[in-house]
Amino acid sequence: MNNFIYENKTKVIFGKGGAKEYLRYLLEGYGETVMLAYGGGSIQKNGVYDEITAILTAAGKTVVEFPGIMPNPTYAKVQEGAKLARDNGVDFILAVGGGSVIDCCKIVAAQAVLDEDIWELEMDKHGTPARFLPMGSIVTVSGTGSEMNNGAVITNEEKKIKCGMLGAANDFALLDPSYTMSVPFTQVLSGAFDTLSHAMETYFGKPHDCNNLSDDLSEAVMRSVIANTRRLLAEPDSYEARSELMWASSMAENGILKIGKVTDFQCHQMEHQLGAYTDCNHGAGLAALHPVLYRHIYKEAAPKFKRFATRVWGIDPAGKSDEKVAAAGVEALADFIREIGLPASLREMGIPEDTDLAAIANSTNLTAGCCKKLSREEVLQIFQEAF
Amino acid sequence: MNNFIYENKTKVIFGKGGAKEYLRYLLEGYGETVMLAYGGGSIQKNGVYDEITAILTAAGKTVVEFPGIMPNPTYAKVQEGAKLARDNGVDFILAVGGGSVIDCCKIVAAQAVLDEDIWELEMDKHGTPARFLPMGSIVTVSGTGSEMNNGAVITNEEKKIKCGMLGAANDFALLDPSYTMSVPFTQVLSGAFDTLSHAMETYFGKPHDCNNLSDDLSEAVMRSVIANTRRLLAEPDSYEARSELMWASSMAENGILKIGKVTDFQCHQMEHQLGAYTDCNHGAGLAALHPVLYRHIYKEAAPKFKRFATRVWGIDPAGKSDEKVAAAGVEALADFIREIGLPASLREMGIPEDTDLAAIANSTNLTAGCCKKLSREEVLQIFQEAF
Repeated sequence: MNNFIYENKTKVIFGKGGAKEYLRYLLEGYGETVMLAYGGGSIQKNGVYDEITAILTAAGKTVVEFPGIMPNPTYAKVQEGAKLARDNGVDFILAVGGGSVIDCCKIVAAQAVLDEDIWELEMDKHGTPARFLPMGSIVTVSGTGSEMNNGAVITNEEKKIKCGMLGAANDFALLDPSYTMSVPFTQVLSGAFDTLSHAMETYFGKPHDCNNLSDDLSEAVMRSVIANTRRLLAEPDSYEARSELMWASSMAENGILKIGKVTDFQCHQMEHQLGAYTDCNHGAGLAALHPVLYRHIYKEAAPKFKRFATRVWGIDPAGKSDEKVAAAGVEALADFIREIGLPASLREMGIPEDTDLAAIANSTNLTAGCCKKLSREEVLQIFQEAF
Repeated sequence: MNNFIYENKTKVIFGKGGAKEYLRYLLEGYGETVMLAYGGGSIQKNGVYDEITAILTAAGKTVVEFPGIMPNPTYAKVQEGAKLARDNGVDFILAVGGGSVIDCCKIVAAQAVLDEDIWELEMDKHGTPARFLPMGSIVTVSGTGSEMNNGAVITNEEKKIKCGMLGAANDFALLDPSYTMSVPFTQVLSGAFDTLSHAMETYFGKPHDCNNLSDDLSEAVMRSVIANTRRLLAEPDSYEARSELMWASSMAENGILKIGKVTDFQCHQMEHQLGAYTDCNHGAGLAALHPVLYRHIYKEAAPKFKRFATRVWGIDPAGKSDEKVAAAGVEALADFIREIGLPASLREMGIPEDTDLAAIANSTNLTAGCCKKLSREEVLQIFQEAF
């Protein structure tokens, strides 16, 4: 086990009815002005908005609304939120939604109390914000695991860069699986795939040693996500499957699986630039790219991919070379993506034929490569093969 | 997934050299008087004491020593520590040792700032302490996982009760696997078995449903502990095996495995009273009792014990009834205990023949029983069969 430092102070309240039972108490001790942040208005249709605002009003809070946070939240939206927070003396940010809403609010929480530009601080000066407005989240769509870490993915439309930034961590996260019932089903599936991707990207980080508790735990998360995604396809309203997927989403990103690991998240890096150029759905982009990327790298980490094949996908290794077993695991992943109806290519995702893949490849962050160091040419080739 | 609330604020610093690199900074922001708590003096022989006191001195701390904390720490020792802390205006408690030292300090941290008697508050009035002295731990022997929760097991010698109490949680836990190198090897093994027991007692809690991420994670921890205990037997100085066991110990008790579970920890309840009457080693007591207890209860939870047999012990279920597979898992556990040289009976542990087993059974806390509700007669029978 490599040396590590681990700390995660987010309080998780999980289960049906959590907001009604606990939100009021969770907001005690913060100031009275609460920014209520949300997305495109689906919470106004499914009753969540009314439920939350009633609790805030009963708790004597002044509500400042910050609606309209888009999928792939933009840097411009962050600035809008930060100005709103400053102008209204916001004491606490309450994010209600999925990873996009939470990510946007994490950076708003930094920018609202920072004089300089947060993008310049983090991207140009490689600095980290020292202070944040306190925030909490009510999760209505799971997959990003954003509720339990301090990372946030923001798209700078002007610069055409979608990338991870460091922002506020949630003081609390309310996870109510019943809230996911009104989310479009494809979004639930792509969220589940995002979780699977987080576990895979962590698992294929270093070390590749097969004696590593973090990898054992990752395998458990992967198997659970696969099983419960299948269960959900059979029973779309299953609270049990939805609750398992919701907690797996947090488990994949609360830091526990990453303990002692060095990761590159190369598929996420590629998908982020695909998103910066096409505004595509994150989980769908990951689904289209993962098997293609893995076909390019599995031979360089065959023992680890073999373990993935046997322990996660149940491939029988008898009579096969390690490389053959490893390859079978990658194809099992590709089959699973088709099985659950996620796009198997960029074309299936609706990415236009004339998309400038070279520009996307050229702007992709090339990592050190835990399995294999990719060249820019190979990244372009992966995008082309994934089309 | 059942509803749950999860929060764990302990910062973990894991790895060789952690104290030298981080302890000084970890102690910033606390007052200057630090109580240095430890056990029977082994840290004075292996250099840990000198290393830590040098860091405390360099940090300008006034050190108040609280030595001599015994295995199975007593309520009298808690009172001694609390008085010492009050008399010397201690600002921070630094526990250096294993679970006994940490457990004792957790309750000292409560009693030192509490006017009434902590035993009366918790045991008689079923109250919980509201304030604690802040504390941190440097772990030299792992197994209890005490560094990452707020439970503490204290023996009231007068009342002949050894039981769990709620105490302070550590602000930080420094885990350095190299510190375990000088610990007696049987203690390392019994610590590993304590970890296995924590995961098993959690796993056999409710629900018994086979779709449960927490159970999947428990299985990963169990398999890792089994594999690394075996590895340690082959290579006693293996840093890798020791580091995996050390982190598994924390993982088993940081609350993650318990998420959504209701547990009874019936074997721990029985061992505690065995300890209260005989002052036996905790891990050894668990080893002697676990298989006997499980032979009494596995039929009532055969599907779960079957899963334990196949997934944790690799039992092939082909051609066997569920009950047969379940029984084979219990015997695999018993074989493992013999394989690693832990006592297979109370007699092997050196428990005197004339021990009043009836008194022990009569004072054991009988839980609701997640697999099977035990009668007092059956508990006595288990103790007798385990002899």
